[in-house]
Parts: sequence; C-alpha cells; structure tokens
Amino acid sequence: MTVTHPAGFTAAGVAAGLKSTGAKDVALVVNHGPRFDSATVFTANRCKANPVLWSREVVKDGTVKAVFLNSGGANCYTGPEGFQTTHAVAERVAEHLGIGSIDVVVCSTGLIGLANSREDLLDGVDAVHAAQSTDGGAEAAEAIMTTDSVAKQVVVEGAGWTIGGMAKGAGMLAPALATMLVVITTDAVVSASDLDAALRAATRVSFDRLDSDGCMSTNDTVTVMASGASGITPPLADFTEALTQACSDLAMQLLKDAEGADHEIAITTLNAASEDEAVEVSRSVARSNLFKAAVFGQDPNWGRVLASIGTTQAAFDPADLDVAMNGVWVCRSSVPAEDPSKVDLSAREVSVTIDLKAGDARATVWTNDLTHAYVHENSAYSS
Amino acid sequence: MTVTHPAGFTAAGVAAGLKSTGAKDVALVVNHGPRFDSATVFTANRCKANPVLWSREVVKDGTVKAVFLNSGGANCYTGPEGFQTTHAVAERVAEHLGIGSIDVVVCSTGLIGLANSREDLLDGVDAVHAAQSTDGGAEAAEAIMTTDSVAKQVVVEGAGWTIGGMAKGAGMLAPALATMLVVITTDAVVSASDLDAALRAATRVSFDRLDSDGCMSTNDTVTVMASGASGITPPLADFTEALTQACSDLAMQLLKDAEGADHEIAITTLNAASEDEAVEVSRSVARSNLFKAAVFGQDPNWGRVLASIGTTQAAFDPADLDVAMNGVWVCRSSVPAEDPSKVDLSAREVSVTIDLKAGDARATVWTNDLTHAYVHENSAYSS
Repeated sequence: MTVTHPAGFTAAGVAAGLKSTGAKDVALVVNHGPRFDSATVFTANRCKANPVLWSREVVKDGTVKAVFLNSGGANCYTGPEGFQTTHAVAERVAEHLGIGSIDVVVCSTGLIGLANSREDLLDGVDAVHAAQSTDGGAEAAEAIMTTDSVAKQVVVEGAGWTIGGMAKGAGMLAPALATMLVVITTDAVVSASDLDAALRAATRVSFDRLDSDGCMSTNDTVTVMASGASGITPPLADFTEALTQACSDLAMQLLKDAEGADHEIAITTLNAASEDEAVEVSRSVARSNLFKAAVFGQDPNWGRVLASIGTTQAAFDPADLDVAMNGVWVCRSSVPAEDPSKVDLSAREVSVTIDLKAGDARATVWTNDLTHAYVHENSAYSS
Repeated sequence: MTVTHPAGFTAAGVAAGLKSTGAKDVALVVNHGPRFDSATVFTANRCKANPVLWSREVVKDGTVKAVFLNSGGANCYTGPEGFQTTHAVAERVAEHLGIGSIDVVVCSTGLIGLANSREDLLDGVDAVHAAQSTDGGAEAAEAIMTTDSVAKQVVVEGAGWTIGGMAKGAGMLAPALATMLVVITTDAVVSASDLDAALRAATRVSFDRLDSDGCMSTNDTVTVMASGASGITPPLADFTEALTQACSDLAMQLLKDAEGADHEIAITTLNAASEDEAVEVSRSVARSNLFKAAVFGQDPNWGRVLASIGTTQAAFDPADLDVAMNGVWVCRSSVPAEDPSKVDLSAREVSVTIDLKAGDARATVWTNDLTHAYVHENSAYSS
C-alpha cells in the first residue's frame, strides 16, 4: 500500500540485477489520473546527479505521470553517457505507458561515479512495468532501499481523500534534503501550484530540518503527484497540514534509521529573534562532532552546546543562555545550574532545549549522535 | 628553550594540583624587556571564556609583560566568580613581577564549566614564579598540554634575532583558531602595530587554515611578545616571513597530534576566482564527515569531494571539476578518470587537489580523518 493507498496509482518493485545481492532495485509509481498535477523539490547541491538534471526539466510544467527509481547506482558524475542512460530509461517508461518521456521523473541512489549498465536498467523498466499493481507500494518502497535497514512508508487519511508516501535515506541527511528519495501520492484534487506551495511548506519544517551528519547529497528528490481520483478538493490548509504530517512522519523514520546512530537528538531553540535564527542555532549544535560524540558517550556536555551557539550570528547575550538536556536545566545564564548527573542519556531519544531570550521564535532541528558505527559504515562503504 | 630561546624571556611550568594526575598544569612566560610590544588574536567564538574576556582588555594597548597559562580547567561558563578568579591570578602575577595586572595575559584550557580552586591557582602562581628561568621554555610547553600527546615547540632563527614558540591543542582546531593556546616570543625590535600586522598575516595562512573537526573553542589565544633584547630591527617582511614559518610549524604539530587521527589531509584548491573561494571550497571538504571517514577507511572516495564542493557558492562549472588524491587525477571534468586503485592511502599524509578552473587563486586547508579513536576520545572525555 502506501504510495498505492490513494486511488489512481499503481506501483511495483523488482530486482534488475543492479544490486549485487539480488535484492529488489528498481521501482515504478504510475499516476493513472484523471489529473496529473505534481510538485518536486531537489537537492540544493550544485553538483547534481544526472537523474536530477533530467527530472528538473520534467517537473517544470507541473505535470508528472510516473516516477521511476533505482537503487544500486546514483548515476552521478557519470557524464553525458550517464545522462543519456537516464533519458533512455524515461523513454522506455513512457513507451510502455503511452505517454511522453517529459512526464517521467527518474531518481537514482547508490554509489557515486558508478555507471550502471543501460541494458540492465532498461530490462528493469520492462520488468517493473509488467509487475505494477494497485497494491505494489510496499515492494516499491523496498526496492529503493540502500543502507536503509527498513522500508519507510506512510499513509495520512483526509476527509474522503488520502495521502501515501515512501522514502529512502539513511545518511547524508542534511539541509535542503540529502540522499533522500521520497515519492508522495494523493487522490485529492490539488492544482500543481497549490501542491508546490504545500510541498515547500511541508519540507521546510520536516526534511529540511534533518541534519544527520551535515553532508548534502547530489540526488535528493521529493516528488508529490495528485491523481484527483477522489474527486474531492480539500481546503489548501487541510491538505498542507496532512502533507506536512506525512513528510514529518517519513523524516522521523529516516532519522531513526540513520547509519550507525545510537540516539535521535531533537535540538529546540526557544525565544529566538526569528525562526531563521532559531534554525541557525539548532543547526550549529547539530553539526558539532564534539557534542554528537558526547551524546554517544551519554555525557550531558552542555559546554559543547554553548560553544556551538557561540559560532552563530544569532541575537543573544553570551552571558545569559539557558540550556536543558532531557528537561534538566543544566545551564542557566551561561553558568552551571542543575546537576548534569540528573540527565539520563541511555534512551535513544534525546532533547536539547536552548533559550536565547532574544525574541519569541522557535525551531527544532533533528540530528543523530556520532558513533563508532557511523565511522565504520562510512569508512567501509566503498567508493 | 623555545619561548626562552630569544633573549629577554624567562619561563617555567609546575604542577599546582589542577590536574588529577599530578602533572604540570601552570605555566608562566615573562618578558623582561627592554621592550614590551605585543599582539594577540583570540577565538572568534562569541561565547568566550573568562580568561579571554580578561585578556582582550589587557592586549588593547599593545603592551604585555607576562602570560600565565593553566591547563586542568578552561574557566569557561563559570560566571562572574570565574572572571574574578582570572583577575586574581593576574593580580598575583603582577604583584610578584612588580608590574600592573593590566599587562598580564591569562590563558586557561581544560574542561568547560569547571571552576578551579582559586587558592590552587594562586598557589600555582607563586610556585611558577619562583621556578622561572631562562631555560624554562620546555617545562612551560609541557604544563599547557591537555589531551596533547607531545609538547609543541618551535624556534626560527633570524639575522641576529630569533623567534621561539609553544602551543597546545589537540582537538577543536577550527577556523579562527580553536582550543589552541600559543605563546610566541622574539627578541627582535618590532612595534606593537607591526607585530599585529605580522601576526594576522601569519595566523591567516596557518592556524586559521587548520580545521580538524569543524568545532571552534571558547578559549583560543595566540600571543606574541617582543622584548627587543637583540637590539635589531628586522625588515617587517623578513619578520613576517619568520613568524609565518613559526606559526605554520606549530600548526602542523597541532594537526599531527589531533585527537584520534590516523591521517593528516591537505586539501588544496587551485584556480579559484579568489583566495577566499579557494578556502571556502577546501574547508567544505575538510568538514565532510563522509569524506573524512572514507580517508580513515583508505577509500579514495572522490565523489564525496565533489558533493562537498557542490555545497559552496564558489565560482565553478559543476560539469568541469578535476580532483586528484595523492597526485592521481581520479576525476577529470566531473567524471571518473585515472583508476582510484592507484591511490595509496596507507601513509598518514594525504593530499587532495581540486582544480576549479575559474581563476588563478589557491589555498590549502588542513584536516584529519574521522576515526573510531576520535569518537572514542570525545565520547569519553567527561564534561
């Protein structure tokens, strides 16, 4: 189910031989209409993979009829040959569906610099097209996994309409998305421009506020397609709220499955002069290797929090900062307060709360701890 | 020797009980003149430790007659009481030397949020003053070590004048300095304003281009004192060159002793539109945990280099980037070139060269790999 939960969609996931393990590695999600509205956001990385270079042309007119995804190779830094492979894949999908290739988004994930066999990919298109069905969502979600340990899926129910989604990503979760592929479907009637506004609002407070390891990928794509098959046009605010719920749910699934992490850390900055400054402060802490290693060691090292805050340009008085960890205010007015030994960091979920006393804006950024397993996975994952 | 190599200086390092191990933990460097010119740069962190808050007032008039340093406690986030401790230490040093406390720089390093016993520190002042001698430089260098495994010292010989220096720091080496205390002495005749210009020029291309783990400390201080005891006034360019050599030598010693590191990585960006952009690009790679973990795993993962470059705003064509590792051009025009298996990453020294093809400026930033030992040390180092 999931991406095939809303009416009007079929999907499938099959093995095309791109993964040496023989696991599923290609997926297809098809919108059968009656409407084909869509919106997409891509990685902000300037060095974009070939599927992103192709797909950003596809999405310009707000119409997307199918999304093809493969794991087992990112098709990034593979040059004009790699771009032609993406184009050939889109053409083959379009041919099967009787549509134009310019309505086919292509997403790839896996190793960078690796050119997959074009023939393998085209055979995969044939196979996944043949396999698609109205309950193929789970297999599609499985086929896009790389170092993910579990498939990520979500369903949100509206008033007579629904949203379904799937995601992959287990590292490089960083601002403006990162090694993250997300496909969201809905049977609500939503225009492309409304979808775009809703998607930007939803990603701004979900995927954009994940910062697992500060690294930004080259392939990230979040696409939403609306079939209109429910015949119902929800108020935009209702739809945006549901879409935000779906994106936040998927984002938390990504966070919890981050490579090698022992803890999920929510860093909330309160009473900032602006939301942007609250994000800047929270993100600076999320990027501190020293702080993240301390959380791994279950050490409530609030000094490393203050040292990170001090690197930002946000409005605050350096002598009047409060910091809590798991609700214990270990620092008040920039000096030690409650006993840090009261902070129990044995559970996976950790909260850090920072009071800047400079305004009334707030924001939360989510990150993971820095662990031996993170170093191990990312030193062993061959280039 | 080292800080006591130039004429006009005495120094000492003794144990004052601040370190639980009983190792040396307080140091004193005294300038006996005839001149007392000085220049200092501090951490850019807005959350500054008490010794920095004190010392930045001391250095304003360009006159410094003594530097007192302690390890075993950073006196950071310790509030007004901590500031008074720093002040009391400066007063005690001044009393012993018959000078004003406003000519005494104080530096502290160690745990944040920890208030050392003021009595212990004052006793330390008494002891270190009594111990000072014209060959106490090595003991002073030893007394400022924290997680450093070796003392860092340097001597540079000029034409009838010399420069000596000592440094500590083994983590949080980041832009604009980081957990780094450096004292440099010279017997050349150099005015305070010339010293300031020379020091800024020297640190800009040495300490400021170390980025061990992206974290910036709260206590960093680099002070240079000129006694004029040689009676020789070198050309400013000669002095600046020698000072740059001293700072670069100490910076490389810091890099090689970085906590838990297996590799020293020099990231050089060539043909940038400006030196600032070359630094920005090199630093973005130095900050990539994924790239640094790959080097630890001896994996020449140039895709992670390109992905980092893509996060910057520097001028370049994303489709026309060249990257070499240890001289092997593994990427040309953003596609695979020479065989990455030719890159041998078994030695500690690694070079990454990036050709932006956008101008004629260049810069090198130095970093370390991300290792199990880094995570271990920084998760175990208690708050």
